[in-house]
Amino acid sequence: MTTQATDRNPQPTRLEHDCIGELAVPANVYWGIHTQRAIGNFTVSNIPDSAHPQLIRAYATVKRACAEANAELGLIDEDKARAIVAACLEIEGGKLADQFPVDVLQGGAGTSTNMNMNEVIANRALEIIGRQRGDYAVIHPNDTVNHSQSTNDTYPAACKLALIDALNPLAEETRKLARAFHDLADRHINDVTIGRTQLQDAVPMTYGQEFHAFASFLKTDLAELERVVPRLMSLNLGATAIGTGICADLRFRKTATEHLARITGLPITAAPDPVAAMTDMSAYIAVSQTVKNLAIHLKKAADDLRLLNSGPHDGFNDLNVPARQAGSSIMPGKVNPVIPECVDQCCFMVFGMDTTVTWAASEGQLQLNAFDPVMIHALLGGIDLLTRAMAMFRERCVDGITINAEVGRRYAAYSPSIAATLNDAIGYEHAADIAKEAAVSGRSVREVAGERTDLPADELDALLDPIALSRRLGQTCREHQ
Amino acid sequence: MTTQATDRNPQPTRLEHDCIGELAVPANVYWGIHTQRAIGNFTVSNIPDSAHPQLIRAYATVKRACAEANAELGLIDEDKARAIVAACLEIEGGKLADQFPVDVLQGGAGTSTNMNMNEVIANRALEIIGRQRGDYAVIHPNDTVNHSQSTNDTYPAACKLALIDALNPLAEETRKLARAFHDLADRHINDVTIGRTQLQDAVPMTYGQEFHAFASFLKTDLAELERVVPRLMSLNLGATAIGTGICADLRFRKTATEHLARITGLPITAAPDPVAAMTDMSAYIAVSQTVKNLAIHLKKAADDLRLLNSGPHDGFNDLNVPARQAGSSIMPGKVNPVIPECVDQCCFMVFGMDTTVTWAASEGQLQLNAFDPVMIHALLGGIDLLTRAMAMFRERCVDGITINAEVGRRYAAYSPSIAATLNDAIGYEHAADIAKEAAVSGRSVREVAGERTDLPADELDALLDPIALSRRLGQTCREHQ
Amino acid sequence: MTTQATDRNPQPTRLEHDCIGELAVPANVYWGIHTQRAIGNFTVSNIPDSAHPQLIRAYATVKRACAEANAELGLIDEDKARAIVAACLEIEGGKLADQFPVDVLQGGAGTSTNMNMNEVIANRALEIIGRQRGDYAVIHPNDTVNHSQSTNDTYPAACKLALIDALNPLAEETRKLARAFHDLADRHINDVTIGRTQLQDAVPMTYGQEFHAFASFLKTDLAELERVVPRLMSLNLGATAIGTGICADLRFRKTATEHLARITGLPITAAPDPVAAMTDMSAYIAVSQTVKNLAIHLKKAADDLRLLNSGPHDGFNDLNVPARQAGSSIMPGKVNPVIPECVDQCCFMVFGMDTTVTWAASEGQLQLNAFDPVMIHALLGGIDLLTRAMAMFRERCVDGITINAEVGRRYAAYSPSIAATLNDAIGYEHAADIAKEAAVSGRSVREVAGERTDLPADELDALLDPIALSRRLGQTCREHQ
Amino acid sequence: MTTQATDRNPQPTRLEHDCIGELAVPANVYWGIHTQRAIGNFTVSNIPDSAHPQLIRAYATVKRACAEANAELGLIDEDKARAIVAACLEIEGGKLADQFPVDVLQGGAGTSTNMNMNEVIANRALEIIGRQRGDYAVIHPNDTVNHSQSTNDTYPAACKLALIDALNPLAEETRKLARAFHDLADRHINDVTIGRTQLQDAVPMTYGQEFHAFASFLKTDLAELERVVPRLMSLNLGATAIGTGICADLRFRKTATEHLARITGLPITAAPDPVAAMTDMSAYIAVSQTVKNLAIHLKKAADDLRLLNSGPHDGFNDLNVPARQAGSSIMPGKVNPVIPECVDQCCFMVFGMDTTVTWAASEGQLQLNAFDPVMIHALLGGIDLLTRAMAMFRERCVDGITINAEVGRRYAAYSPSIAATLNDAIGYEHAADIAKEAAVSGRSVREVAGERTDLPADELDALLDPIALSRRLGQTCREHQ
Repeated sequence: MTTQATDRNPQPTRLEHDCIGELAVPANVYWGIHTQRAIGNFTVSNIPDSAHPQLIRAYATVKRACAEANAELGLIDEDKARAIVAACLEIEGGKLADQFPVDVLQGGAGTSTNMNMNEVIANRALEIIGRQRGDYAVIHPNDTVNHSQSTNDTYPAACKLALIDALNPLAEETRKLARAFHDLADRHINDVTIGRTQLQDAVPMTYGQEFHAFASFLKTDLAELERVVPRLMSLNLGATAIGTGICADLRFRKTATEHLARITGLPITAAPDPVAAMTDMSAYIAVSQTVKNLAIHLKKAADDLRLLNSGPHDGFNDLNVPARQAGSSIMPGKVNPVIPECVDQCCFMVFGMDTTVTWAASEGQLQLNAFDPVMIHALLGGIDLLTRAMAMFRERCVDGITINAEVGRRYAAYSPSIAATLNDAIGYEHAADIAKEAAVSGRSVREVAGERTDLPADELDALLDPIALSRRLGQTCREHQ
Repeated sequence: MTTQATDRNPQPTRLEHDCIGELAVPANVYWGIHTQRAIGNFTVSNIPDSAHPQLIRAYATVKRACAEANAELGLIDEDKARAIVAACLEIEGGKLADQFPVDVLQGGAGTSTNMNMNEVIANRALEIIGRQRGDYAVIHPNDTVNHSQSTNDTYPAACKLALIDALNPLAEETRKLARAFHDLADRHINDVTIGRTQLQDAVPMTYGQEFHAFASFLKTDLAELERVVPRLMSLNLGATAIGTGICADLRFRKTATEHLARITGLPITAAPDPVAAMTDMSAYIAVSQTVKNLAIHLKKAADDLRLLNSGPHDGFNDLNVPARQAGSSIMPGKVNPVIPECVDQCCFMVFGMDTTVTWAASEGQLQLNAFDPVMIHALLGGIDLLTRAMAMFRERCVDGITINAEVGRRYAAYSPSIAATLNDAIGYEHAADIAKEAAVSGRSVREVAGERTDLPADELDALLDPIALSRRLGQTCREHQ
Repeated sequence: MTTQATDRNPQPTRLEHDCIGELAVPANVYWGIHTQRAIGNFTVSNIPDSAHPQLIRAYATVKRACAEANAELGLIDEDKARAIVAACLEIEGGKLADQFPVDVLQGGAGTSTNMNMNEVIANRALEIIGRQRGDYAVIHPNDTVNHSQSTNDTYPAACKLALIDALNPLAEETRKLARAFHDLADRHINDVTIGRTQLQDAVPMTYGQEFHAFASFLKTDLAELERVVPRLMSLNLGATAIGTGICADLRFRKTATEHLARITGLPITAAPDPVAAMTDMSAYIAVSQTVKNLAIHLKKAADDLRLLNSGPHDGFNDLNVPARQAGSSIMPGKVNPVIPECVDQCCFMVFGMDTTVTWAASEGQLQLNAFDPVMIHALLGGIDLLTRAMAMFRERCVDGITINAEVGRRYAAYSPSIAATLNDAIGYEHAADIAKEAAVSGRSVREVAGERTDLPADELDALLDPIALSRRLGQTCREHQ
Repeated sequence: MTTQATDRNPQPTRLEHDCIGELAVPANVYWGIHTQRAIGNFTVSNIPDSAHPQLIRAYATVKRACAEANAELGLIDEDKARAIVAACLEIEGGKLADQFPVDVLQGGAGTSTNMNMNEVIANRALEIIGRQRGDYAVIHPNDTVNHSQSTNDTYPAACKLALIDALNPLAEETRKLARAFHDLADRHINDVTIGRTQLQDAVPMTYGQEFHAFASFLKTDLAELERVVPRLMSLNLGATAIGTGICADLRFRKTATEHLARITGLPITAAPDPVAAMTDMSAYIAVSQTVKNLAIHLKKAADDLRLLNSGPHDGFNDLNVPARQAGSSIMPGKVNPVIPECVDQCCFMVFGMDTTVTWAASEGQLQLNAFDPVMIHALLGGIDLLTRAMAMFRERCVDGITINAEVGRRYAAYSPSIAATLNDAIGYEHAADIAKEAAVSGRSVREVAGERTDLPADELDALLDPIALSRRLGQTCREHQ
């Protein structure tokens, strides 16, 4: 079946056929005709499936579980199943990574990726049992490897496992970044500064509280990540085409699901309505929203740090993000907050991801949504991007932030809004007059209140002590870890 | 304090003052100077706060809980608290609805709505105890009604309660629409038709399965709605400005939260990090995503029904949506699927809502996000819109759908893809040949397979029976209700 | 045909019929059965067509042009045409505004609005010629008023004229706001402050240049508005259903287009490809993008003003936006930039509008996009909102901005980046050292350079004069008006 | 300056310094310390600047123009300028492509890319004049190569030229695809089929008209592309930091702009307000919208083709898109429209691009928008993607479309809506009755009208002739080319 290289046909090939006709495939690759056609068909992103190793690994895992289920149910030979399992394990281990060349934005709802997987597994399994690649009479990509399966059930299963795989490092980096903000907060738990609402001076708080809030945001995201992962564990194996289970042994759904749960160690279940599960994109939307929410929090932290770092002379100047590189090709000595700016841009990419996913999720028709490939590509891309962005943010910015404690102290002391603490004793309107005079005269509320009220000095001192004010609700940085 | 109407000043007014200066307020309104300024300031949407009765009611409930907490803690007089509570109950009951005229897109992070509420409650409470409106020495909008509170803690609390209030009818309509699809599915549980993937004929299924999937989508949404509501129950009362609790008695946070939980019957809690809670918009994003996901499912159902209803001659013609009105000003007799088209447009509005909410949620700065007003306006608008759209969809479309059973039967019988059921017996490639010949010749797979395989007739009949095929995974319509 | 009010049927009605059947219509309204059905069908937004008076007026104008064309071509009687024209003129003049009650988010691609218009015109025209409403044998909504027309050609024509009508005041307010920024710039043409890039102190500029840039943005938008309007003038009258001109006299396209051009005074033309014009939504997308770009500029101005107004003590404090209302229910004396915050929120609504329009524009199928109604509703809503937002922004913020000239002067004097002017004389690296020392020591570059370079004092003064620096490129505020 | 490789330090390096300190740079690279820092700083997308060759080429062109301007004005030596020009020409010719490794999502507003360019040019120019890399006393990246320039003016200039460069092949593919649809239309100019509005059978048209509309859409896009390119030609050279032109000779702006215009052959001008030009992102928004509009049209064509190709038995079946690959891993013989599905997914990516660009464009602050890098990355990515998608669409789908002429003829003959042509002769209501009966009975309008009207047979034939109907407005496929 394999031709020799000649002068006129320098690369040895093997000839394969499908329902369209025949096609030569390079002899030295593991893929077959379906992959070969797909390579020629989809030439848009220039990004191959192998750029998403989580997807490749997850798909091999799914195929392995199915092979074991098929063997257990006597649907394929034990020997063949063993070879398939061995091939899958190689792929899961990172081998054959260059054998998945189809464009990530392929049409066909993932059929090409599934067939690519079936072909590579079949040919590698054939080798393992001492056969030649292409000897499909022995192990057939469709009849053996894909037995009891369809693209419509295995591809989404692989996509969801791939997302779980990608969300783990995202959660890990979220946790690390939360801890970095926590540590920063702990270091500055007693350093007073001003809180600002609507960019106007409000009332005193500590740097610790300010940084701690960033950690709290990320803990919210961690909780959301934990909430979203189980939604990815409702799979549809054995549903085959349109969810009727056509061509699959009736026991396969349960058995394959159990094998996959065992292999992955995840509480995977079969979707209750297999027809609906074919077109319900809720899990992708939920992941996209969870990642978007994380991006909103990262943007918030990056933007606030850029504000607090503004100046040094003519801005807020509450703190300093680490100098990472010269800031200007022309203004000597200028240093810019390049890391937070990079974080912001990653967030804008993630907002775009959410748009792409929303579109693709909304355009399914009848018994299938054919746009899984762009969803999984966008989601994995966005997740990986934020994962790396958080590592960068932590290592090259958050860990090195220093505060300008004296600046914060001065801000806290001269805030007119601190007059709010006098409301109870002298009423909102009298307090407002004092605040106004303090603001206009540039004096502190403490000074003005000393002159304009009858309150004794020690009561005023107690009421207006910024550190006590900040701590009223009892919050300290470590308590919510 | 109240002037008489004269020729030159025909409307009686009372004069009020704030930190900006003095202003005349119509004598016959309950609001005061802060509201009056806000009316003049914000002239953009022409939609008053009163267009969102859920928000007005919820804010009055929050104020009532705070008044009771203030009274319990001895922070304001019992008598005044009673009057405030009475005024709140009137507002919660729908009275004074015309006293909330401020533009929904107000700047100021909700301060104008809070002050509007404080002023109306103060003036109505003054009346209740036999005082004149404006007699703020007795009951003051800030010092009494707003005691222990700020806009930054009460406004988001009211917004979240308002969302819970709005999500109830949304869930109820979701449930009803799911039931309508269920009932439709039950009526057609044995009616065979064709399933289509990628708009290509796939394998047989029943109309029941097809409609049941729409019900399953909505049950996913119901589960999501249940999941999102608790996220709206973490409030920040007593946090006052920036989350430090400045000006509020330290016991107030706990007491006010308990009163609000008791009044509403909801398990409301105080947010663990009051500073972070000020600027964490995750709950709004989660609501927006949940509503968006529902819209995606409604769009899917509307789009599929429009496809299945296409024709009558030159389209799918699987079913008929009810004729609601003449479809064309020029083509006589043409009837269009106007109700699903209306549903689609509501979904496009909801997609816009999600964009608006994402923007607003992402633009907070330092200790406050000042854009709550546009978020709550967009969310309540979107939720109400989808609530009404589902009622319309159910009553004027889904309930009246009829199927073209004969069409479905013919489709099922002549599907070439049904050859998939032969894979096991004769292999994928042989089955493909049969499918191809059936497709080309316009004959059924049953006919071609009878000629081209050795399989006995009764085995072929059993393998190719569409109703049996559809039921393989055992799903019936009622089982998941 | 009109029944009398009785006890059991208290409201007099007239009975009308269509291809669905018969229906009673209130006797005292001008609309007929198609409108009546639509009122009952579409119950989603609760916003009637009459909320967009531009659309009502524009549609009446289109109907008038068509009636005149029909009359000129002898397709309908002169007398009837005259009555129709008279009815149209009344509607264009603002009469009968309450006769257009159909939901703006109607399904049916605008058919209900067209039929509503046909019915109101027919019944009013019947009255004008002394007939009873409902006497359709004389003037028929379809056969007479809608003669040679379809919804598919007249509705988009009316939508586009409505947009032109709405864009005029938008452009006018853009112009006024640009002038307000210009005037503000002129007042501060010699007031030096600091320019900031990446929120870091950069080099000196004048307040005049800063404000002038806002005006320049708006001039870009004005140019874009001028560019987009002609795209709304390619109409499709006479195309009738799907663009084939079926049912319409062949001369009608040209004649109706000419009448409409004459009436409106606009260079309206007929689209070159009538089939493509039915589904080409480019003009809506272009309008949406133009309005979005304006919103981006308004957001930029509002955000910058909020930054420059930050403080007063602990922020930039370059300038003061006018105090419009008390800023806090709890912090006495706090004043917030509520007007820019309101502007921002209008921009977020416009970003949502763009999403809605993009969706609707992308979901057309085959020979029609049925989603014009939501597009025109979203666009008119967004345009009107920004128009009012700009008036508010100008009157209650921009016109009253005051600068803190002394603050700006101090910022300019102590900017380390001003060392850039020394690059030529002493090289980037030496200049960087000076900048660094100035930054660290808190001294001015002028002082440090005096010590650390050999440059003569007068050369240093000249190089480092901020006002001269700002003016180098010769720009003055008035020059581009 | 260059160290030798030793055992402990195997890679030879040269030591460079900046305002942060010292850093070793590999001796064999052309970049310097600024690039080296940036490589270490930005580790998010793993996509280097060199992935956008248009940007690299364009930046080298800008640098070349600036070097020539500097030389002409006597600001740098002729010899050095010549060497710089030579280095730029090499880069423009595609050499040194691996010397631009900085992450495309870099923070710093493009400073790293500018410095990377300055360093590579400087070191290559040094080599050209026989000096060692790093000999910056002779040719300095900042003082010589970047003379009279800043990142803030040259980076956007390079971005805009890069966009012009990328838009050319996009326009070329748009043109080719329009022609492909035109050719397809010409081949089927007389083949009748049914037009459908709201997915309901409407009136006859020809396949030619249907395909021609796709070509017309693309011509709209071509016109828009032509309109948007000039907006990219207003550059800001010589504006340096914040638009004041600080550090640049006053003649430089004009001279450099002229050199760049000459080199590129484009009518490039200097922006009228250099301060505003720094932060006005209108040109990017305009490009994004133009590309989005093209995507909307491509999606429309892909979606329509998928609908028209639906079936083959149980769908529209008007035409056949070419079979490109087996459609199912399980359903034998099934062939799916994979190419249009791939096109759709590219469009969803472009919609995401527009979101990313809108965000980045809206988040500039004060005198700079620091987010150019993500905008240019997203735009170039989207443009390149659509360019390739159109080539694929044309070659592997549009060129091979075949129609089912008999199907179309049958559809046209039995459309009930064709009764509209009788409106004039017998009135809308009578025509509606005929249409209804035809629809119900499954007979043609011609048959029913023959029985139910008095119209003579030849008049009926003439009125109801589908090809004549389609041609009424005189459109033929070639006329608008």
